[in-house]
Amino acid sequence: MNQDYIQPNNWSIIEEGFNTENVKSSESLFSIGNGAMGQRANFEEQYSGPTFQGSYIAGVYYPDKTRVGWWKNGYPEYFAKVLNAPSWIGINVFVNGEALDLFTCKKVENFRRELNMKEGWLSRSFLATLQNNIEIEVKAKRFLSLDIDEVGAIQYQITPKNSNAEITFQPYLDSGITNEDSNWDDKFWDTKNVSHEKNQAFIEAKTMKTNFHTCTFMESSVFINGEAVSNQPTTNSQVNYVSFSYKQAVSKGETYAIHKFGGYTVDRNHDKAKLVSAAKAILEKTSKLGFNGLLEMQKHAWANIWNMSDITINGDVKAQQGIRFNIFQLNQTYLGKDSTLNIGPKGFTGEKYGGSTYWDTEAYCIPFYMATKDQNVARSLLEYRYNHLQKAIENAEKLGFKNGAALYPMVTMNGEECHNEWEITFEEIHRNGAIAFAIFNYYRYTGDYSYIPEKGLEVLIGIARFWHQRATFSTDKNKYVILGVTGPNEYENNVNNNFYTNYIAKWCINYTLENIDRIESDYASDYTRIMNKAKLSKTELQQWKKVADNMYFPYSEKHNVYLQQDGFLDKELITVADLDKSQRPINQKWSWDRILRSPYIKQADTLQGFYFFEDQFTTEELERHFDFYEPFTVHESSLSPCVHSIQAAKLDRMEQAYTFYLRTSRLDLDDYNHEVEEGLHITSMAGTWMSIVEGFGGMRVKNNSLSFEPKIPKQWEGYSFKVNFRNQILKVNVCQKDTKFELEGDADLDIFVKDKKVRISPNNLVTI
Amino acid sequence: MNQDYIQPNNWSIIEEGFNTENVKSSESLFSIGNGAMGQRANFEEQYSGPTFQGSYIAGVYYPDKTRVGWWKNGYPEYFAKVLNAPSWIGINVFVNGEALDLFTCKKVENFRRELNMKEGWLSRSFLATLQNNIEIEVKAKRFLSLDIDEVGAIQYQITPKNSNAEITFQPYLDSGITNEDSNWDDKFWDTKNVSHEKNQAFIEAKTMKTNFHTCTFMESSVFINGEAVSNQPTTNSQVNYVSFSYKQAVSKGETYAIHKFGGYTVDRNHDKAKLVSAAKAILEKTSKLGFNGLLEMQKHAWANIWNMSDITINGDVKAQQGIRFNIFQLNQTYLGKDSTLNIGPKGFTGEKYGGSTYWDTEAYCIPFYMATKDQNVARSLLEYRYNHLQKAIENAEKLGFKNGAALYPMVTMNGEECHNEWEITFEEIHRNGAIAFAIFNYYRYTGDYSYIPEKGLEVLIGIARFWHQRATFSTDKNKYVILGVTGPNEYENNVNNNFYTNYIAKWCINYTLENIDRIESDYASDYTRIMNKAKLSKTELQQWKKVADNMYFPYSEKHNVYLQQDGFLDKELITVADLDKSQRPINQKWSWDRILRSPYIKQADTLQGFYFFEDQFTTEELERHFDFYEPFTVHESSLSPCVHSIQAAKLDRMEQAYTFYLRTSRLDLDDYNHEVEEGLHITSMAGTWMSIVEGFGGMRVKNNSLSFEPKIPKQWEGYSFKVNFRNQILKVNVCQKDTKFELEGDADLDIFVKDKKVRISPNNLVTI
Repeated sequence: MNQDYIQPNNWSIIEEGFNTENVKSSESLFSIGNGAMGQRANFEEQYSGPTFQGSYIAGVYYPDKTRVGWWKNGYPEYFAKVLNAPSWIGINVFVNGEALDLFTCKKVENFRRELNMKEGWLSRSFLATLQNNIEIEVKAKRFLSLDIDEVGAIQYQITPKNSNAEITFQPYLDSGITNEDSNWDDKFWDTKNVSHEKNQAFIEAKTMKTNFHTCTFMESSVFINGEAVSNQPTTNSQVNYVSFSYKQAVSKGETYAIHKFGGYTVDRNHDKAKLVSAAKAILEKTSKLGFNGLLEMQKHAWANIWNMSDITINGDVKAQQGIRFNIFQLNQTYLGKDSTLNIGPKGFTGEKYGGSTYWDTEAYCIPFYMATKDQNVARSLLEYRYNHLQKAIENAEKLGFKNGAALYPMVTMNGEECHNEWEITFEEIHRNGAIAFAIFNYYRYTGDYSYIPEKGLEVLIGIARFWHQRATFSTDKNKYVILGVTGPNEYENNVNNNFYTNYIAKWCINYTLENIDRIESDYASDYTRIMNKAKLSKTELQQWKKVADNMYFPYSEKHNVYLQQDGFLDKELITVADLDKSQRPINQKWSWDRILRSPYIKQADTLQGFYFFEDQFTTEELERHFDFYEPFTVHESSLSPCVHSIQAAKLDRMEQAYTFYLRTSRLDLDDYNHEVEEGLHITSMAGTWMSIVEGFGGMRVKNNSLSFEPKIPKQWEGYSFKVNFRNQILKVNVCQKDTKFELEGDADLDIFVKDKKVRISPNNLVTI
Repeated sequence: MNQDYIQPNNWSIIEEGFNTENVKSSESLFSIGNGAMGQRANFEEQYSGPTFQGSYIAGVYYPDKTRVGWWKNGYPEYFAKVLNAPSWIGINVFVNGEALDLFTCKKVENFRRELNMKEGWLSRSFLATLQNNIEIEVKAKRFLSLDIDEVGAIQYQITPKNSNAEITFQPYLDSGITNEDSNWDDKFWDTKNVSHEKNQAFIEAKTMKTNFHTCTFMESSVFINGEAVSNQPTTNSQVNYVSFSYKQAVSKGETYAIHKFGGYTVDRNHDKAKLVSAAKAILEKTSKLGFNGLLEMQKHAWANIWNMSDITINGDVKAQQGIRFNIFQLNQTYLGKDSTLNIGPKGFTGEKYGGSTYWDTEAYCIPFYMATKDQNVARSLLEYRYNHLQKAIENAEKLGFKNGAALYPMVTMNGEECHNEWEITFEEIHRNGAIAFAIFNYYRYTGDYSYIPEKGLEVLIGIARFWHQRATFSTDKNKYVILGVTGPNEYENNVNNNFYTNYIAKWCINYTLENIDRIESDYASDYTRIMNKAKLSKTELQQWKKVADNMYFPYSEKHNVYLQQDGFLDKELITVADLDKSQRPINQKWSWDRILRSPYIKQADTLQGFYFFEDQFTTEELERHFDFYEPFTVHESSLSPCVHSIQAAKLDRMEQAYTFYLRTSRLDLDDYNHEVEEGLHITSMAGTWMSIVEGFGGMRVKNNSLSFEPKIPKQWEGYSFKVNFRNQILKVNVCQKDTKFELEGDADLDIFVKDKKVRISPNNLVTI
């Protein structure tokens, strides 16, 4: 654990006391979002200390020209990048002409920041003494509305404490913003028009190249002791900027407040010529509701989300806070309303990892969304890849594949590859497998087969074709091999016969063949349509099968385990426990070659295969592989602890499972990787959810039924979670002594608890 | 072969006819240099078409901030880069006020460019019709003096052909220059002072960061029909620029000429405060000599070089031109006068490959310099590495090695690493082996053991320590392995147990141990000094020996060959002959992953080991390995054909040897790799020399004697070369029928011809 300034609390993230060194970390941790936009917890007023400014609009990106040291054929020329969007949260504050700036004022006391996850708002309060010796109390609150997801609201209150003061609020919009991670300092935004009318202002700007049209807007009004002040503000309008000034003489002890509504209208949702009028319509609604009215709606909306997705943990505040923080951030990032959107590894909390979508979505996020939302949300995530199939085929063509083989990009915003490290971009091809697995997983969980003949099979065919072509026949081994890959463990590059990759390749081909058979017999017209479109012949299917049937898997007779890749046993097999602590984390201490020739594993690799395909291995096999690989695992990926937590729980190693759980759930809150200031690890948060539901709860879907193997860490009194299983809500409550099941819905549900069938009837508590 | 516009000629490179598409290629091919500076063959007068401007001063570089897509620990933060230096060759020409510009004038006829290699000058002549319809004849000649290596000279003559004309010569200096390959568009030069006095001008400029102080200077004078014109020019002096203007009414048929001397004084050779006066002293000398006097000296200087290093080939003009071009360029690049300098892969002909020194120097260039220069030149090249030993130790420390282990950089200018691709920078570690091999090779050839106790052993110890630490013990193989390397064949990255690397590692350790023993017994005081300095214990030596004695080498029983690396036989072993021609060159057609998983070899890898350590393998073994690997070799490195030519000759495959010879000797002249416009492949030119001397001539040094196995391609009538062997000059003349040996020197020399001893007496032709 590297930091410890977040106060333990069941429902809130709280920071007390002002420390300039925490500002960038807190800007990440206190980020807010509503699925359509998000922003780091930057201060409204001016701040001249170290800060990382960020506001982001879902789906608004820019293709930044690729920057590399050494170009390789096949690299994408552009890299779609999450854009820092025009800022609407700014409110400059002047007290007797002096700008309020926490970095330069004489004293900051009683600083408190709270992210209230239950109700979905961020607040901040402090007492500041300015250079002019005026002491003011500030209380600010802001949120991004879930109900009207193009708008947010800020309430900012100042009370002079030791004298009268002339206070000016200067709310503004600013489109003169940049990305910190710009490759070539390109200008990303082109401001088309700045306008204002009474207390409303608008900046219309479009992104360069991608031509996303946006209108950033604001409306503000001021109050003395809660009473509206009707003075018209003065206005300052520039090329990329517009502000209002509200100057007011405020007596000592009086409270001067501003309410500011702001947000974005974008041409994904509106006619690009009518973005200003769309903004006005939104402001008309929010004006009527007022800050408090909109806040009440926010509380209800979050109550609804929590009602479905909350996980409670009794007797362990830090664990409780961790899981709620994870669930809260996932819901801030993606709500499944728009199938052109996806879940970026940093959500709306930072710029890093440029493109939005990784294999994280399919491997880690889909189970969370399937179980806590309507199943259409997961289907929407699958369709995202279906919609990118043609681009995945083009991507594979760039790398020399043909005939409709599809290689999904490692990182993408619009279906095009956004990454440029050859060992990842070209070689971390197992990502294709996760995309196929998600289709299988969706059907397994929801029972909705319709997706496969409608869309999924075409994706599966593209992927199967890729694996068929990517495998090569080794006359030496008399088997098909897959050479030159990077597995999930990115601390190995360009290896041969990565077990996980070979396994999922074989599985993808077999699963595709299985579905072709089923669709041929049950969905004749879909079958004809798809086979014609894909120009797929029986001969080709036979060739696929030959590859799948003769796939090579490296195995050690001595250790009785599959080898992560060819040659793994040539390494110096010193466990992490025996590695000098001063050498950790190795990704910060060692050069890349040293990492590569070490046995150290960044995240589950062979074990990721055992996680996905659990049914295909015995528990003894799992145990053997866990015992072989986990001791070499450094868990330096945010996606590592969750899989290990689930497997440790399955192996009844509850202490270890608990440790992994804490690590995944509090990764950002405790800043394990010393990098939270760059943004949060959103996708791994879904892994945290899996650690509880699949790990401790032991939930699986087998033969169309839910099954459970409930376990509980000794540190906890109890925990509960809910899952939406095929439109019925099952609540599971695990205590040290027993497990309770409760069902919302219309029909009885047969579940399995420790392999025994149990019938749960609606609204009838069952204790086991 | 990709271009064919260079006229075959025994002594000159000639281009006839003006084609704007050839300008950049010709700028490379006609480059001139004198070891201390060099320049691309840019036109003196203005040229608005596509051009790549370049003037370079030996040893003047800039640490450009590293640019990568994804940073890896251990990358150098800066990258020492060859700098484009202030230009002194420019002479703007105006004819009745219109600028002469071959890209825009109405007509260009009789264009001819010649690089006269025998005498060391570049000339250009043409007839141009300007937009104003004036026809002028231009003759220009320039060279960089070998004798006074800080200066060059230009003679530029114009004759109006169809009318009188007012002609202006505007010679200038310009320090407002940039590098095309700048990473961040940094400003590299800081101009400190621009001054002029009569017909001389000076720009003092220093490089940013490295603070190399330079003075770029010129002096000019004009002539009508060979008679000096005494008018004072008008002067235009700016921040980064100074020019003179000589305006003259010239009658039809008269010749107006300018002579310009120019060059650089640098603070490596002079007090930085006295660069201008040093320049004036040089100009005083050259003024006295005049253009023609300096040119005469140039011809003598080149005659001396050719006298020692010429190779003649009779009956094959293209082959003759090729080898002379190679020898000429090597001598233009490095003359061994300064041990802080080295041989850059592009010499003074382009910017690419930033840093100056690669393993090319030790692996390919040293034999040429040993045999065609005084042995101190080769010793100077060895000392270059000795002087960088401490930096090599620091470089190894950055990668986690300790205790004095040294890893020489892949690319360097001042001993620091200048490369930033992890698979090369961190993994192409075999370079260390070549540096040790060069010490062995130097002693083998010159018999000068003194270098080893004085300096060489310390380098060998650092290198042996590196290999000892870099090898790891595989309990699985019960052998030492070297994991995660890139061999000489850069079309494989991060492989395990590359045969060449493992072999040279073992050899380095054994050779170091052997020398420690010899120095212990024969050079007691050196021994004590070195052992104390290196803190080397007998225990450590035993550990080294254990690694060397138990090194693993991948071997195929089936094919009876050493494998290039573990897993090589898993590849689809389709030979280059069976590869569709449309796929070649693969480095331009295929993505990197596809290249890596293919069997294709960029340059000799296993065979490079057979080349270095020929004595340790039988000819049958060589043949087997040649037959196994050459069919997979695409020779897409300039360093590939020469080694294969030598080995093919040894195996009596003269057709193949001849084909490889042509490819190496005319690589740039015929632009095999479609990239000559970026600059020439200087270091591979030394490989061309080896192809003849070691390949066709079969020259080796065995037990302190030269031995030969002369062979001759059927296309040739005869060929001859000279070698300086231990201060005696042996001339070897091979014809289809016989071989003649002739010796300059004082003592008889016993040589071996086809394993038979032959005594050669001075000045006594021996025919065999």
